[in-house]
Amino acid sequence: MRMTDLIAKKRDGGRLTTEEIEWLIRGYVSGEVPDYQMSALCMAILFRGMDDTEVLDLTMSMMRSGETLDLSPIRGVKTDKHSTGGVGDKTSLVLCPMVAACGAKIAKMSGRGLGHTGGTIDKLESFPGFVTGISEERFFENVNRIGIAIAGQTAEVCPADKKLYALRDVTGTVPSIPLIVSSIMSKKLAAGADVIVLDVKCGSGAFMKTPEQARELAEGLTRVGRLAGRKCAAVITDMDEPLGFAVGNALEVREAIDVLAGRSEAGELLELCLTLGSFMLSLGGLAENEDEARARLRATIADGSALAKLADMVEAQYGDARAVYDTSLLPAAACVVEVPAASAGYVKHIEAENVGLVSMHLGGGRATKESEIDLSVGVVLHKKVGDRVEAGESLASDAAKAAEAAELLRRCYTLSGEPVAREPFIKGVVR
Amino acid sequence: MRMTDLIAKKRDGGRLTTEEIEWLIRGYVSGEVPDYQMSALCMAILFRGMDDTEVLDLTMSMMRSGETLDLSPIRGVKTDKHSTGGVGDKTSLVLCPMVAACGAKIAKMSGRGLGHTGGTIDKLESFPGFVTGISEERFFENVNRIGIAIAGQTAEVCPADKKLYALRDVTGTVPSIPLIVSSIMSKKLAAGADVIVLDVKCGSGAFMKTPEQARELAEGLTRVGRLAGRKCAAVITDMDEPLGFAVGNALEVREAIDVLAGRSEAGELLELCLTLGSFMLSLGGLAENEDEARARLRATIADGSALAKLADMVEAQYGDARAVYDTSLLPAAACVVEVPAASAGYVKHIEAENVGLVSMHLGGGRATKESEIDLSVGVVLHKKVGDRVEAGESLASDAAKAAEAAELLRRCYTLSGEPVAREPFIKGVVR
Repeated sequence: MRMTDLIAKKRDGGRLTTEEIEWLIRGYVSGEVPDYQMSALCMAILFRGMDDTEVLDLTMSMMRSGETLDLSPIRGVKTDKHSTGGVGDKTSLVLCPMVAACGAKIAKMSGRGLGHTGGTIDKLESFPGFVTGISEERFFENVNRIGIAIAGQTAEVCPADKKLYALRDVTGTVPSIPLIVSSIMSKKLAAGADVIVLDVKCGSGAFMKTPEQARELAEGLTRVGRLAGRKCAAVITDMDEPLGFAVGNALEVREAIDVLAGRSEAGELLELCLTLGSFMLSLGGLAENEDEARARLRATIADGSALAKLADMVEAQYGDARAVYDTSLLPAAACVVEVPAASAGYVKHIEAENVGLVSMHLGGGRATKESEIDLSVGVVLHKKVGDRVEAGESLASDAAKAAEAAELLRRCYTLSGEPVAREPFIKGVVR
Repeated sequence: MRMTDLIAKKRDGGRLTTEEIEWLIRGYVSGEVPDYQMSALCMAILFRGMDDTEVLDLTMSMMRSGETLDLSPIRGVKTDKHSTGGVGDKTSLVLCPMVAACGAKIAKMSGRGLGHTGGTIDKLESFPGFVTGISEERFFENVNRIGIAIAGQTAEVCPADKKLYALRDVTGTVPSIPLIVSSIMSKKLAAGADVIVLDVKCGSGAFMKTPEQARELAEGLTRVGRLAGRKCAAVITDMDEPLGFAVGNALEVREAIDVLAGRSEAGELLELCLTLGSFMLSLGGLAENEDEARARLRATIADGSALAKLADMVEAQYGDARAVYDTSLLPAAACVVEVPAASAGYVKHIEAENVGLVSMHLGGGRATKESEIDLSVGVVLHKKVGDRVEAGESLASDAAKAAEAAELLRRCYTLSGEPVAREPFIKGVVR
């Protein structure tokens, strides 16, 4: 097999066989296929696309390039959730305890934040003492005993994806649906769950700018997941503004706890968790249908079982579970500065990516993989799209060691003289 | 400037500015722009194309990456010719003496053969003693005194093209008209002539398979040449079979001499030289119009002045000019083997590339740049497309140290039971 022939085949609109894809991914990881051929192939794929079989083959080859998690020691239905990445996205912190409280098993490997987006693992470390690097033995034991564990990546999962993503990032070949699908699904399949639900963000703050693009990605992800024998569903959600109100590690944990405790309206965050959770329970056979699943998920808030499940997890991973019931025990910033609106109006848009960057610059996120982060800092939005604001009223606040980001944060807001209608938060679902 | 942004711009259908193209070519030659980004950009260019300004900018940037020939010491109209490469293509050997005999100046840098195609420099070395590596001083002196010199490349012409072509060759990005145009024209512009004529081959033995593709390339080449201030024309010619009858160095020189001496019918080879030559003379202002130019070119054969011009050049480059008038002084193979037809029929097709490879395997061409070649060996076709052949009649002969290629050569021929109409050799012109 010659890489040049495979590039020419794809360039001319042909399809790559299972053997060809396996050969090229193996060769790329081993270094026999050089970067300059792989980047040319990625660009050809970007223009020509791939059919479902090719995407599945690419996904499986990338998955097989590294270690895969064998969840067979876990009894019950293993469920997993993935988000394409958003600002203020604390969904996992709310969703996972809720579905675990309904009997689904959450054995989740999660990542750290980079750039303007945060990571679940960082957020969980806001609980004093919380350990994300628990042993595999402890991980499985916790899931079997309390139904939930969320740990940092330990195994060398999908080295092909790591290498390929780094290349795509500098060669203009990120925005290709087949390549995005295989990148996401290779890691999700390697993580071993039976049921996988996906939250595909769309809007100015997301990689997919339009609901149509997001739907195409959502359909691609679920199709490949199903072809690989997993149960899958996806939801397409708005990222024209940050999700919920808090952006920053401990601030997001506090917001998640408020939702789990039933103290917050938090309409959209809760609605997202109910939707994703109802897919997880019904696809996993733990509920008759989505309606029943939603009712049971709501009940976990009313009866405190979801909050208790979060406390169980924190304790089982050596964290201070008292913070679940007393959020004053979470890290808090030394100083909070309000951001008054310069004029009256209606909030038309909140630039999510820039809000994420403000939080990062305050110390709440990583500019590079090596950056140390400050769990206490971040941003809290008081006004969201559609809200009326009076001149001088606070749009948001930044919590930091020193006040400094107010002006940057003000610029994230666009106000309108006319009332602004909120677009629906959930743009669509793929079942 | 960031290469990733330039790739994304072209990927999304944008155009690259003069500054961006200059920056990326400089960066590529210096090594700051890595191969993996350049190959992705080339693939994006392949899909998105480039407008004339972009192609001109790319051509000029590549030209400026190396040395350019200053032909100002030469008095008169400097003319040059380029062929996209064919099998049995001895056009320069016939054309250059003819136009020089009409007063045009030929200061030509030429290449060596590689793979299935031959090179003018190799062919000229069939003249005993002929030196292609003459000094620049001698080169200019010869052109001023006798009107013609053909030498091997000495200067470091277009290093950007060398590096880029090597990359394109292994990344499936050769077949892009803008990239082909800039590769060819950067070298032609660097060679300094005022008038440039181009022979674009098309057919099974050429890179451009259809006349439409060849026309697109021919138009691209002449447009960029004109935008760069040169006079340009192109002819699109058939390469569904080798050009003329001989394939192999000394054998081709003998065929060229036969045409220049008026001894051969050689309809197509002569017609091609008359067409290209009439463009060179009329564009160079050395003839009133193409008809007058053709008449003068024909006269150089009738009055022996073209043959004399070849002899002058051979002598001025230290070769044995007697061989021009006595071709038995040229290298000759030890053994000639006829290739009888297995059955009767009409020649439908002669696979030019394979004929070139047979000649190469006999020792007449280079498998790698380092190969030594045997100037005496090669192939002579006796039957061409459209010809009637009886069973046992000779299709062709191979001239070699040892007979061995007859069967391979027979397989280059496709015979038909029905008469075969010859397609026109000249498919079109671009003036």
